[in-house]
This record gives sequence, structure tokens and C-alpha cells, in this order.
Amino acid sequence: MLGFVLNTHQQWLCRRLADAGYTVTRQVAVPDTATDIQQTVREALARADFIIVTGGLGPTSDDLTRDLIAGLLGRNLRVDAAILKRLEDFFAERGRPMPAHTQVQAQVPDGALVLPNRHGTAPGLAMEVNPNPFRADGKKTWLVMLPGPPRELRPMFTDQVLPLLRKESPLDGAFVCRTIRTTGMGESVVEERIATVLQPLTAVGLELGYCAHYGEVDVRLVARGSGAEKLAAEAEALVRERLGSHVFGVQDDQLNATVVRLLTERKETLALAESCTGGYVANSITDVPGASAIFLGGLVTYSNEAKQTLLGVRPETLAQHGAVSGATAREMAEGARNRLGADYAIAITGIAGPSGGSDAKPVGTVFIALATSRHTFVLNPVNRYDRPTFKQVTCQQALELLRRNLIKASS
Amino acid sequence: MLGFVLNTHQQWLCRRLADAGYTVTRQVAVPDTATDIQQTVREALARADFIIVTGGLGPTSDDLTRDLIAGLLGRNLRVDAAILKRLEDFFAERGRPMPAHTQVQAQVPDGALVLPNRHGTAPGLAMEVNPNPFRADGKKTWLVMLPGPPRELRPMFTDQVLPLLRKESPLDGAFVCRTIRTTGMGESVVEERIATVLQPLTAVGLELGYCAHYGEVDVRLVARGSGAEKLAAEAEALVRERLGSHVFGVQDDQLNATVVRLLTERKETLALAESCTGGYVANSITDVPGASAIFLGGLVTYSNEAKQTLLGVRPETLAQHGAVSGATAREMAEGARNRLGADYAIAITGIAGPSGGSDAKPVGTVFIALATSRHTFVLNPVNRYDRPTFKQVTCQQALELLRRNLIKASS
Repeated sequence: MLGFVLNTHQQWLCRRLADAGYTVTRQVAVPDTATDIQQTVREALARADFIIVTGGLGPTSDDLTRDLIAGLLGRNLRVDAAILKRLEDFFAERGRPMPAHTQVQAQVPDGALVLPNRHGTAPGLAMEVNPNPFRADGKKTWLVMLPGPPRELRPMFTDQVLPLLRKESPLDGAFVCRTIRTTGMGESVVEERIATVLQPLTAVGLELGYCAHYGEVDVRLVARGSGAEKLAAEAEALVRERLGSHVFGVQDDQLNATVVRLLTERKETLALAESCTGGYVANSITDVPGASAIFLGGLVTYSNEAKQTLLGVRPETLAQHGAVSGATAREMAEGARNRLGADYAIAITGIAGPSGGSDAKPVGTVFIALATSRHTFVLNPVNRYDRPTFKQVTCQQALELLRRNLIKASS
Repeated sequence: MLGFVLNTHQQWLCRRLADAGYTVTRQVAVPDTATDIQQTVREALARADFIIVTGGLGPTSDDLTRDLIAGLLGRNLRVDAAILKRLEDFFAERGRPMPAHTQVQAQVPDGALVLPNRHGTAPGLAMEVNPNPFRADGKKTWLVMLPGPPRELRPMFTDQVLPLLRKESPLDGAFVCRTIRTTGMGESVVEERIATVLQPLTAVGLELGYCAHYGEVDVRLVARGSGAEKLAAEAEALVRERLGSHVFGVQDDQLNATVVRLLTERKETLALAESCTGGYVANSITDVPGASAIFLGGLVTYSNEAKQTLLGVRPETLAQHGAVSGATAREMAEGARNRLGADYAIAITGIAGPSGGSDAKPVGTVFIALATSRHTFVLNPVNRYDRPTFKQVTCQQALELLRRNLIKASS
């Protein structure tokens, strides 16, 4: 609540829950104070069938959640011998003495399930509140407490909480959710192409949603009840038919991983030459585990000298057309391809801003070249965004240029 | 609530509010449905003196906030001629017809202040709810509605909302908040070094807090009331004295910007040679506006061939010590420095994982070399993290190695 930490739990948990057919109706963040925590949990208990609380299970003095929730529900805490043993082993393995206060993490409220933590010390806890004293009808609620660090919370949610939720709050009938990932078209164009053709399916219950990110539009298809699988499959087939090669993946697929996969399948290699994106594309490619199989190297050539020395861009080209030009982008791509001996090379040169623009070449001007064994292609979009967004959008366009070339070459 | 978008508003707004002396007591996210929105606003009105609502002011059918809040407070909406004119001009300037539904953005609830939007179409709105019918004592509440896109919300908050908040809910007396940014020490070490020496000041009201990120620890000093400036200044001086060169900045300063600033002041240049970080460091440096003045270029040499061809690493070195070794890091740094003609070069080689480790060189092993005109320094940390965190932590260590060298050279 002081703004020192970005809350990534909301997006991560909501996405997994929505894809599993569960609607999150409220997300609340409060300071680490007893009144705020108890008041918020009490309100959630009055409202919800399933509550996930994150953080506050650690060993420090501001980790109050376990205690406060046990207090609110009138449950005693007892030390769980198995957890205590794990804590002692955890520190023994690392050759460190166990700090005295660590022991609070072995405390378990009466009747709670213990969710073992494979990646840290604090286990999760799951409590069935039945009857639920905060609801007029006493209807039961499950309350789950998870540790705050994402690397502890995420596997615990996937492996232990989601199965518990499915068992304790089963959906009414089947639920199928399919997200189709597209690129290279705006949201309104995507909608125009598919909304009409999907109308017979939405009329019989298909739910259709769109989500636009920079350079990408997700189409979310949801079907429920008997025949859900068939309805979703029909819808997906129609979407794929109408959007063709603009579809680059499904669910959580990313464009960088798609490009790495396509190159890996074809046993081909990539080189990069970046000016204005300053390493963003190289960093994106190398975020994909296994990228080393296809990525030979990249050159970030900010200065004209570096463009000449490292890539062999000709001084005449720079003098005649300037560093930000199609001719320079072309020579950068061909230079990177030749010098690194790659099958493909992408080169990017442009003006990221905030300064450096001119009337002829305003901030946002960019040239993207793709060199292949047969041709060198050059795109010239204008990406008028702040600096970080400029890099992101330009990277997306460059990867998409390569992807379209790879799938064209395959077909 | 479907998890397609990361909520960055919470962190951004909370940080600015906390630094201005205002405590955020609750942050709530709800789906775009009438019941949820009205219920949440009603609860906030019963609780808070100042409420900020974000999003839902656009022209589409799920932008319900303006309507719902006016309805909840029993206020009529009227079209504001000045806003309508701005909307018409906005589309005329772009040579596009104004879609019919855009006009809803010109609707203003009775008695609301209009907060002009310099970066988009939907203006913000600020309403004084006085008396507040949702509070037993009728105490007034301010309710501010801001557009969702960060580039519209942020300047509107800074330029219009914060002054309104300061005027309408002034703090009791002075408030000074100073965040000291440190690197190269863990949280407990920082605390050990400063807590005791600050005790006389905390005894007279200084508030002291810590926030640890990967590789960084922030020390937050807050003083209130008369003498706050003096108390905070004394505290800052003591912290700086105890932590010395571990302090790299204050408030929102970033290590990459600090390094760019130091190099710019000294008119010196930087080159990079990255293997396992794959362009992360180049991307971080080029995120800083004006980096082109000091950054000549970077080489991302994933393959052994690229290390030889582009950086001149000797085949014997690779054969004898391996690509992940101090010797290779050293030759990479010296090669990058020489080939790009830079004053400093950083080279990084290591094993990011998840695979590729061995008993002798486990996943997380990394060698960071800094080549200067006089020496080449090599660090050998082991950064056992997931792949994105590995890159981030390693980048931080590399920039810190350079920063310490730059400030040592200056002194």
C-alpha cells in the first residue's frame, strides 16, 4: 500500500480462475494492520464461497494473517510437528541456525488443511468455515491462505488450490474456455471479421470476448453445459478460418516463443541487429528457454561507427540516407546475417524519442528489415508511443514479420 | 478480473499518495457490472474521506462508471458544451468522423468539477459529496473519477488530483518523506548498520521503513510536524554516512539512469558483451532517454562462434576454460572495449537455466567482467533464480560494478 511493490497476484490468479470457469467478483488489498485485515476478511466471508488470502504468513512481526484469521474464526493455533520438522530440515540443509521466530510458521489453526510449500518455508492453509457465522444463511465458505512470494504461491495454487476448488465448488456442468491469440490486426478489424460468422453460435450460448494488447488481440471463446466442447471447437475453427495466419497461438502462447519454436522445428538460425530497440528484441528472444538452439547473436549498434565496424554498413549509405532509413536497415540486416552466418537476420533502426525527431522523420519512425537467403524485406511503421512502449510494439512487429515469413516458407 | 491486464494503477497511485503523506487504506477491483460497481462505491463512501475511481469513462457499452455513480448520488447528467467542443476538435484534427457514442464522454454529473484530459478524450470528474448520505455523521467525501489508460491518468493525477487533495484534505502539519536507494547489501545488513544510530531520532518521531527488491534495499524516512525537515535531513545524513557508496540515489532514481548520468558527466562511453543475459543489460541502458550519448553498442554473443568472430575470444580460452568462465568473460569485455573503442566494457557469461548446469558450474553461475583503461575486474556470483529474475539480478550486479568503479575513479 506504500507503492513499493507491484501486485502481480491479481492478474495471475484471476486469469487461472477465469480460464477454469470461476468468476472473481472482488479483489481487495489492505495495509498490514490487524483492524484492516480482520475487517476485510469478515466482509469477504459475508459475501463469497471461496476466498484466497495472500501474504502475511512469514516469520516477521508484520506477518499477522494466520493469527488474525484464527482469532476471527475462534480457532486455536497448535504447532504442527511435521511442519516444524520441515522447517528445521530447511535450515539444517543450508547449514544455518533456525531463527527463533521461524517457528510461528509451523502454527496451524484447528481443523485447517496444510498445503506444503515446495519452494519456501511458510506452508499454505485451507479452512472450511462451516457453518459460516458471517452469512445469514450460514452457508459454508472455504478460506485459503497462501504465501506471498510468487514462486511459492503459483505452484501451490496450481497443484493444491485449484483441485480443492474444483472438488469443493464444482461448476454446474461443462466449461470450455479457449483463447485465440492474434497479431497484425486491430480489435475492430478482428471483430468485423468474426462477429457475424459466429452469430449462430453466440445465439446458442457461445460467449465471445476480445482483449487488445499492443499489437495483439485475444479472442476469448467460452462455452458451457452439454455440447460445450463441440461448440467451442466449432467456434475456434471458424475463427481460425476467418483470421488465417494472423492467429499465432492459443491460451498463454507468446510471439517470441512461437518464433523460437518455428525456427527450432526448421533447424534454422537467427541473428539480430538493433539500434533504437537497444537490445529489447534480443532480450525477448533469450527470455525463451532453449533459445540458444536458434539464436546466434545480436548486435546493438547505437552509434554510426558501430553500424559500420560491426555490421559493415557503408559510410555512403549513412551519409546519403541517414542512420534511420530503409537502406541502412537493409545493410544492417544483411551484415548481421553474413557476419553471424545465420539463416535469418532482423535489423531495426528508428527514433524511439522523446527527442531526436524531425519533420521528415518524426519520433516513432522506424525501419525493420528481415534478411533471408532470397530477399531482404523492409517495413516502415511509425510507432508514436512512449519509449518503453515503442520498443515493445516495434519488437512485436519485427517478430511478426519473421513469423509470417517462416509460415509462408513452410506452406 | 479475467486476468488479461496487469493492474499498475495500485502501485503507481499508492506510491505517490504515500510520498505525499496520505495513507491508502484500501484498494478494490471489481468486474464491469452495475451491481458490483455501485456496491463498491457505496462501501467506499461509507468509509473514506477521499476516493479515487479509475476506468469505465470511455465511450463503449461497458463504460458504466460515470452513469452509475451519478445514479448512486442522485445527480443528473448534462452534456458539457466545452467538453463536447474538445471532443469534436479531437476528431476533426485527426480527420476522422466522431463516432456517435463518443458524446457520452461529455456528460457531467451536476456539481462535478471537470478535470481536462491532455492525452485522450475522456475528462476526469471530481465530486464533493457533502453531506455524505452513506456516513452516519454525514461527513463529506471527495470522489474522483479518472480515465483508465496510464498515460491519461498519471498526468491528470499529478497536475489536478494531488493539488485538489492537498487543498481539500490538508495534512495536520508538515510531512517529509525521503527514500534512500541502496544496492549491494541485504536488508538485514542495512538494518544492522543504521537502526542503532537512528534510535535517538526514531525516539523523537522519525519513522523508519525498509523495502527490499532484488539487489536493492530502499530506506524510507518519514518525519511529521514542526521540525520535520530538520529531522529528515539529520536522518538522511546519518544513513548516508553509515551506508556510504552503497547509496546510489533517492526517491525514484534507478541504477541504469544513475550509470548513464555518471558516464554522461564524465563524457565517457560504454560497450557491452552479453551472453546469458541476452541483451537485458543493453535494453536496460537504452531505456534511459539520452543513453545514446554514452552507449556505443552491445554484442549479444550466444554462440561460441559469435564470441570468437565478434569479440575476438580465443578458441584456446574457450577450449581450456569453457564459455562460462572468468577467462572468457575477461576476453569478452576486453574485446568489446577494443572493438567499439569504449572507455568501459561490461561482459557477462553464465548459465541462466532452467537447463545447462553441471556440478562444477550449476545453473545460476555467472561471470561478470568490467574492462577499463587500467584493469579488468571479474565477479563470480551464483544467481539461483528463475530465468527472468536471473537476468534482472545479474544486470543489477553488472551496473553496480560499473557504478562503484566510476565513483571510485571520481574520488
